[in-house]
Amino acid sequence: MKALVFRGPGSIACEDRARPVLQDAGDAIVRMLKTTICGTDLHILRGDVPECIAGTTLGHEGIGIIEETGSAVTTLKAGDRVLISCISSCGKCEYCRRGMFSHCATGGWILGHTINGTQAEFVRTPHAETSLYPLPPGADEEAMVMLSDILPTGFECGVLSGKVEPGSTVAIVGCGPIGLAALLTAQLYSPAMIVAIDLDQNRLEVATRFGASHALDSAADDIVQRVLELTGGKGVDTAIEAVGVPATFLLCQDIVAPGGIVANIGVHGQVVELHLERLWSKNIAITTGLVDTYSTPMLLKTVGAKKIEPGRLVTHRFGFDQVLDAYDTFGRAADTGALKVIIEFEPPTTT
Amino acid sequence: MKALVFRGPGSIACEDRARPVLQDAGDAIVRMLKTTICGTDLHILRGDVPECIAGTTLGHEGIGIIEETGSAVTTLKAGDRVLISCISSCGKCEYCRRGMFSHCATGGWILGHTINGTQAEFVRTPHAETSLYPLPPGADEEAMVMLSDILPTGFECGVLSGKVEPGSTVAIVGCGPIGLAALLTAQLYSPAMIVAIDLDQNRLEVATRFGASHALDSAADDIVQRVLELTGGKGVDTAIEAVGVPATFLLCQDIVAPGGIVANIGVHGQVVELHLERLWSKNIAITTGLVDTYSTPMLLKTVGAKKIEPGRLVTHRFGFDQVLDAYDTFGRAADTGALKVIIEFEPPTTT
Amino acid sequence: MKALVFRGPGSIACEDRARPVLQDAGDAIVRMLKTTICGTDLHILRGDVPECIAGTTLGHEGIGIIEETGSAVTTLKAGDRVLISCISSCGKCEYCRRGMFSHCATGGWILGHTINGTQAEFVRTPHAETSLYPLPPGADEEAMVMLSDILPTGFECGVLSGKVEPGSTVAIVGCGPIGLAALLTAQLYSPAMIVAIDLDQNRLEVATRFGASHALDSAADDIVQRVLELTGGKGVDTAIEAVGVPATFLLCQDIVAPGGIVANIGVHGQVVELHLERLWSKNIAITTGLVDTYSTPMLLKTVGAKKIEPGRLVTHRFGFDQVLDAYDTFGRAADTGALKVIIEFEPPTTT
Amino acid sequence: MKALVFRGPGSIACEDRARPVLQDAGDAIVRMLKTTICGTDLHILRGDVPECIAGTTLGHEGIGIIEETGSAVTTLKAGDRVLISCISSCGKCEYCRRGMFSHCATGGWILGHTINGTQAEFVRTPHAETSLYPLPPGADEEAMVMLSDILPTGFECGVLSGKVEPGSTVAIVGCGPIGLAALLTAQLYSPAMIVAIDLDQNRLEVATRFGASHALDSAADDIVQRVLELTGGKGVDTAIEAVGVPATFLLCQDIVAPGGIVANIGVHGQVVELHLERLWSKNIAITTGLVDTYSTPMLLKTVGAKKIEPGRLVTHRFGFDQVLDAYDTFGRAADTGALKVIIEFEPPTTT
Repeated sequence: MKALVFRGPGSIACEDRARPVLQDAGDAIVRMLKTTICGTDLHILRGDVPECIAGTTLGHEGIGIIEETGSAVTTLKAGDRVLISCISSCGKCEYCRRGMFSHCATGGWILGHTINGTQAEFVRTPHAETSLYPLPPGADEEAMVMLSDILPTGFECGVLSGKVEPGSTVAIVGCGPIGLAALLTAQLYSPAMIVAIDLDQNRLEVATRFGASHALDSAADDIVQRVLELTGGKGVDTAIEAVGVPATFLLCQDIVAPGGIVANIGVHGQVVELHLERLWSKNIAITTGLVDTYSTPMLLKTVGAKKIEPGRLVTHRFGFDQVLDAYDTFGRAADTGALKVIIEFEPPTTT
Repeated sequence: MKALVFRGPGSIACEDRARPVLQDAGDAIVRMLKTTICGTDLHILRGDVPECIAGTTLGHEGIGIIEETGSAVTTLKAGDRVLISCISSCGKCEYCRRGMFSHCATGGWILGHTINGTQAEFVRTPHAETSLYPLPPGADEEAMVMLSDILPTGFECGVLSGKVEPGSTVAIVGCGPIGLAALLTAQLYSPAMIVAIDLDQNRLEVATRFGASHALDSAADDIVQRVLELTGGKGVDTAIEAVGVPATFLLCQDIVAPGGIVANIGVHGQVVELHLERLWSKNIAITTGLVDTYSTPMLLKTVGAKKIEPGRLVTHRFGFDQVLDAYDTFGRAADTGALKVIIEFEPPTTT
Repeated sequence: MKALVFRGPGSIACEDRARPVLQDAGDAIVRMLKTTICGTDLHILRGDVPECIAGTTLGHEGIGIIEETGSAVTTLKAGDRVLISCISSCGKCEYCRRGMFSHCATGGWILGHTINGTQAEFVRTPHAETSLYPLPPGADEEAMVMLSDILPTGFECGVLSGKVEPGSTVAIVGCGPIGLAALLTAQLYSPAMIVAIDLDQNRLEVATRFGASHALDSAADDIVQRVLELTGGKGVDTAIEAVGVPATFLLCQDIVAPGGIVANIGVHGQVVELHLERLWSKNIAITTGLVDTYSTPMLLKTVGAKKIEPGRLVTHRFGFDQVLDAYDTFGRAADTGALKVIIEFEPPTTT
Repeated sequence: MKALVFRGPGSIACEDRARPVLQDAGDAIVRMLKTTICGTDLHILRGDVPECIAGTTLGHEGIGIIEETGSAVTTLKAGDRVLISCISSCGKCEYCRRGMFSHCATGGWILGHTINGTQAEFVRTPHAETSLYPLPPGADEEAMVMLSDILPTGFECGVLSGKVEPGSTVAIVGCGPIGLAALLTAQLYSPAMIVAIDLDQNRLEVATRFGASHALDSAADDIVQRVLELTGGKGVDTAIEAVGVPATFLLCQDIVAPGGIVANIGVHGQVVELHLERLWSKNIAITTGLVDTYSTPMLLKTVGAKKIEPGRLVTHRFGFDQVLDAYDTFGRAADTGALKVIIEFEPPTTT
């Protein structure tokens, strides 16, 4: 089969690889239908993720059709069309029993990271029954691909950790795909104000189209002042950090209201400064989180009911034979305007 | 009357001052029975709190007897024995309606800070009906003085923000009076383990006596390692920072378990480092908070039912004529072993 | 001034009464701009509310302009345009400190019940600062009248007590004004399904227009079966009882899913049967509640941000000189199609 | 092997049965060490539980040693000493993913109910990895038997559903084993008052010894009045119904405070009256629940830390050859003073 393989920092290639086979009783083999590329894949490509070794097939998102299941799998069967969660969870370790699937003793984020992933014609998915979700009949496949990672990440780490609620005020710092996923899902709770903040005019326009009530250019001198003005001098109830650099985390500290929350989604690569000398008396919380995907069933229902339309995040589509073009387009998002790209596999030929 | 007056950095004195008089319809004048000294009073004395200007009577804790009430006060009357909360709250501004009394538009921490305080024979207390609490009959007066500030602070900012719960693991970093208040109140939720951490052997002994299951000397080389060993390699569910310096905040980051909370009580004077490059995927929360005293009614009930005995924090007692000695004893706690000192006023002479 | 006075069971009249005057330091006198009629007013008229004695001016909803304030009032002043909450709260008793304003020791629902109410040219409002809300500039006055009672009642007792959440399933049993208020506010949380249930075809049509995903005639034989079919055999996560009779409460018990909530808004006049022999193992909750109006600030923000449009509940408008016609129209809702009626007062003549 | 078999209403017998064998990949076979009898076993014996058919081995509690595991079991192995939960949960169905293990699609309460149970020398436990808990080294075996059912039931359905908290007031209506389990676990949250209510003087004495602050004879004329007096006229914040008959449920309605909760643990056999005409405006909640055992890990930690000592519930001990005597003693609790009886199996003979 064809697979997109990480060959070491700076290098990926589409290679011929052996089809994966069942290893554990709880495994499934899934024939891929659609996948996508995540910002994290670019981090791996840049060499920022040392535990992903050369030779690994990338990808932790997508939908497919079950080809085969292990002997312990009773609730899924060959032929089922499924959503693949970016988080594999055994459902039985201490963390899984607490709903912290990201810290599963034998799972977590492993696909396309420590084991082969979904950017291939077939993928082996461990803990299949607690990591795959049957697609509802008639489900929009492109929308579903967004539920593998980006939508639950924006929702859990941004919206739920940030306790967005009816009438509250929200700032989303960074309007890349993950910030936009937070923007879409924040609206499930009907906040009164969503301030989108980014350097990129195109992304601010997208944010406005996706429901932001205000869009602010973070390069402007007076960005903190502008947010304070919009909120009667108080700041926002929820500041969602969706970039992952010290400057945006500092901005969040400056614009969060007393009693508010800085909800961190960004993947940080360095230590940051925290102004406890100003914040100690401000009754705030700062949250961090790798997605647990505990909200996936809830999101499946909201997408099914058309309360959100994550398919709007898709800007480009490629066949799997164009996967390197897809990486190029996604990697140069500032030029190409790419948000999420869909990579589609050839349908199986019936004989 | 006699009052303990801040005369500028490094200087306090016991002076003759005019008795306070009613200014607003919601005020009460309270004749003091007992007060105490807070670490924050020492901060003011050192000049760290610029908004407290020379000439201010210090003190924000204590109990007394109401002498006189303003025209709008209907639920309190002269002769009532009351607990004075360190936080004055109007009960009607937006923050008060949300229970964030520390951010009251016309209150918050003002006593002994921006208006004259409780280290005087009489004090004017604004917003009396929502800032004073009638003492239950037979209440232990020394225990009650601990409810002005230190007990709700340890409870709200440490225990409640830290979500201590039955069976959970807690570390208390810093076993001064405020850390010990967190230690006492944490036990209301029956955690399975409370690890007390301090440099001072005496304080560690007190912590053990007050219910800590483990006491660790933070000067030891392997303090992080020791905590991890005690918790099966995971770290603690709740790390309560009760010092307020960068080193202790760093320690909390190192010992908090995935899914855990760093609950900050310490008053910080400088920016700290936050290792988001390690913590971003650890699903933790960091909380800050000035006490709101929303838990005061709950604490009054638990003290009344003898579920906690905050009077155990009292190590020294002085008459108000010895208030400077009291400051000296409290200020040299490492030498004197002082935790909380009680300062008692002369009972009013009946004529 | 003119006032609509309850003269005993079955009898109301528009009478000349003395203008109310300030009695307590916390009072305000409000010149009414708009009021409305509540189902509870009809209950009083029928004689079902014995604590409302003959001679009382009815009404507990409306907006107006402050004419005069008591000596303790500092945050409101003459000329302020305000929303009058149906619940008067002192903000300082034990219940008010817990947010249970409906049980305020000296307030609760008193307007038009135990003291004179808002269906008059002027009204005295006790505890003005914690019971009146300044209207935002440009506020839609008719929408605001809905915030006195019906909207917070549907929201707090139905939606919040019922824990409606994104992707959940909701049934609203009874689509009168209060059920429709629950329907409007439930959508703030983006449930996947809202099943409206009523006997009245007109009300079901309104419910569909207001956002119900399904509308079911409760007279149909198979109403329970229909709900179970819609929910995959499980029943609904939240069943909102908005009628107040035994039959509708029974229906809620039959359609609530395991783990679900029956949120009771209806005003019940008799004992009901509870099938604990079926429900004891079903892990459900049943909630009751008189509105506390703690959500009024939140609702003001959501209405201001146009997340809900409660003005859509208004079907008829009358001048105060037609108030008896308004009662007649509202009282014969099945014939008139009335939901909420607006009663408008003459604007004050400037001299 | 020997097994205690239900032979139809009114009849049980100790019979020779074939040893259970593995059926599903997730099963384990457990050699029993200790078991106990539950009130539910008596219900079955009386014929109140029709889905338990003649021929079924009774029992859903106990500890044992794993003898054999199915092919899909990786986290448990032969020789492990384990606690058997009364609830079998697959960990992967919709209800299990929500933590509602009692409603597991292929589990729930099945042991000694719809499949053979634990009152036998060996038992087959389905879904072993998510239904068995390895015992900590040095664990008190009798205490652990209490964690199969009675302790999590009292804790989840009484204490957690009833939101017992520091300083709150609690009434426990019915001081049989399950009420006493609620009494023990309620103290994990340090309520200010626990009022034990029962007809049986012996049980009231036990309740007092176990930590109740007040013990009231429910046969007294003025039981409601007495509770109101103890609570300043308000009633209790949490009323735990631990009997399961209409009279005790009515009592709970009469003694619950505004804003309080009636937490139902009792197994009800008939419809009850609910006085919504009095309660609709009282802002209360009524909860029901079959235990989910989601709290078992938390309870294991609190028992390990000696925060509660459930072994105190054990009043009698029998060998398995005396199991019929054990039923007799437990069934005549009013005469024998039995709370929980321990039934011990012969230790395996080593060869």
